[in-house]
Amino acid sequence: MLDGWTDGAAKSAIVDFVARVTAEGADFVEPEARVAVFDNDGTLWCEKPAYIQLDFLVRRLAEKAAADSELADRQPYLAAATGDLSWFGGAITRHYQGDDADLKVLAGAVMGLHQSMTVEAHAALIAEFFATAMHPTLERPYQQCVYTPMVELLRYLEAHGFTCYIVSGGGRDFMRPITSTIYGIPPERIVGSAQGLKFEGADGHGDLLIQPALDIWDDGPEKPVRIWSRIGRRPIPSAGNSNGDDEMLTYSGRAGHPSLRLLVLHDDAEREFAYTAGAERALEHAAEYGWTVVSMRDDWARVFGA
Amino acid sequence: MLDGWTDGAAKSAIVDFVARVTAEGADFVEPEARVAVFDNDGTLWCEKPAYIQLDFLVRRLAEKAAADSELADRQPYLAAATGDLSWFGGAITRHYQGDDADLKVLAGAVMGLHQSMTVEAHAALIAEFFATAMHPTLERPYQQCVYTPMVELLRYLEAHGFTCYIVSGGGRDFMRPITSTIYGIPPERIVGSAQGLKFEGADGHGDLLIQPALDIWDDGPEKPVRIWSRIGRRPIPSAGNSNGDDEMLTYSGRAGHPSLRLLVLHDDAEREFAYTAGAERALEHAAEYGWTVVSMRDDWARVFGA
Repeated sequence: MLDGWTDGAAKSAIVDFVARVTAEGADFVEPEARVAVFDNDGTLWCEKPAYIQLDFLVRRLAEKAAADSELADRQPYLAAATGDLSWFGGAITRHYQGDDADLKVLAGAVMGLHQSMTVEAHAALIAEFFATAMHPTLERPYQQCVYTPMVELLRYLEAHGFTCYIVSGGGRDFMRPITSTIYGIPPERIVGSAQGLKFEGADGHGDLLIQPALDIWDDGPEKPVRIWSRIGRRPIPSAGNSNGDDEMLTYSGRAGHPSLRLLVLHDDAEREFAYTAGAERALEHAAEYGWTVVSMRDDWARVFGA
Repeated sequence: MLDGWTDGAAKSAIVDFVARVTAEGADFVEPEARVAVFDNDGTLWCEKPAYIQLDFLVRRLAEKAAADSELADRQPYLAAATGDLSWFGGAITRHYQGDDADLKVLAGAVMGLHQSMTVEAHAALIAEFFATAMHPTLERPYQQCVYTPMVELLRYLEAHGFTCYIVSGGGRDFMRPITSTIYGIPPERIVGSAQGLKFEGADGHGDLLIQPALDIWDDGPEKPVRIWSRIGRRPIPSAGNSNGDDEMLTYSGRAGHPSLRLLVLHDDAEREFAYTAGAERALEHAAEYGWTVVSMRDDWARVFGA
């Protein structure tokens, strides 16, 4: 079942952990407590050269600029319409340099993109995007930018009585329309960032409308909070790839039982990308606390499906 | 399976609905979309003469007053310590009369009751409460104040491929320690009100600590919002008993398919309680939109288990 994993320390850690917590004895964990949590961007699917969701949002901004000429010479619509992706990266870089102006402009436009749309209409837009959108350099549809060994791991855990959840800084409602297809994980097991919603009802019917404000920013220390809020259990195995997953990995595991904390290391420039920026603290903690670092280059026989 | 239901319109509505959406044909709903939502207080368990959670909170306030003599002559500790339950009802009544002072005092004390406690320690307190606490007039433990016909309905729906969730104005983490036992509904399918949580980690371990502020008030128009946030699907059957369930019942159902919206009517002073206060709007909508009103007196052969 783990055919995409080469024999080595990472695969052994997975197989040994599962064997120990599912066999009768002191390490046994009852099936209802076998909750596993997975980050998404960079852990289950590719996050470079940009988050897939950012590509979706830039396309939506460009569509909006095309439909409204008053917007077309204003940021972030101008950058979106002219394909100037460096502006978006620059807005984030300048934020880390203490200049928030462009990031606020971007966030305001993004929050307004789907304002007053029903959650169902929004889901249809996402499904439409994934039906055709291609990764800019990997020459494959985004739908096929999922890491095959990690999908095998989802199935392997499920075959041993685990229930798998995705806990991502990405948009909860951006992931939901596609996760059943690409991961076999249904909407009720997707935890992520989200805009506010508002109920509006009349004549015995009602809808949920997207509001132009952030409700949940599901990253860093908020991940364990959202895990409890949504699941009500402390997860046991967990997987991530960045500093934003550090608290989730720290939170997971049951005292006195074996744990499994996987940190995916992007060290495979040939088959995917090689980078550690944004994962420094998590990598330090992995070394300090004995988490399992998964080398894409060495531990995975393949990265993507055919 | 629905032995606690008498033959009549309510039972027929349930059986007919389930038969139609599970049989092949135009009304068929695929199993993964068979999501059912149930209110808790007054729908699955008894909410009179006071919410069970209020009894728990008053006991906790009294314990705190007993441990700290500086609190003992201050509200709400004084009322809790002296068993003056009318003060709590009065605080709520005065709130509806435009005087919020006592309700604010009460809310502040309640928010602080479990401040900085881990979610696990809090769950242990709840389990301890339910192990012995008795209903004040029904002469049975709170654990046995669940409506047997509704538990049968949960099992009946599950037997037909539905997944049942509880969506309550009551505390999410107050219900979770007991719902697997009394309803067969696990923590991950409990949606409710909640205090904020904060992650604190050190040395590779971390805990979630309760914060002295409300995070979610899961009532009225917020119920559909929390349903989407947690489940990501529009539920089909739904059950409630009060105005706080009106929007959830309105939101449920799929266009062009059969729906089932149950409104439990407390009209059984002999076996439980008789009241419609707080359910006026929901009862109007039931009449206007053809929701199924469940008469405890007429539709239930029994109310509680032996």
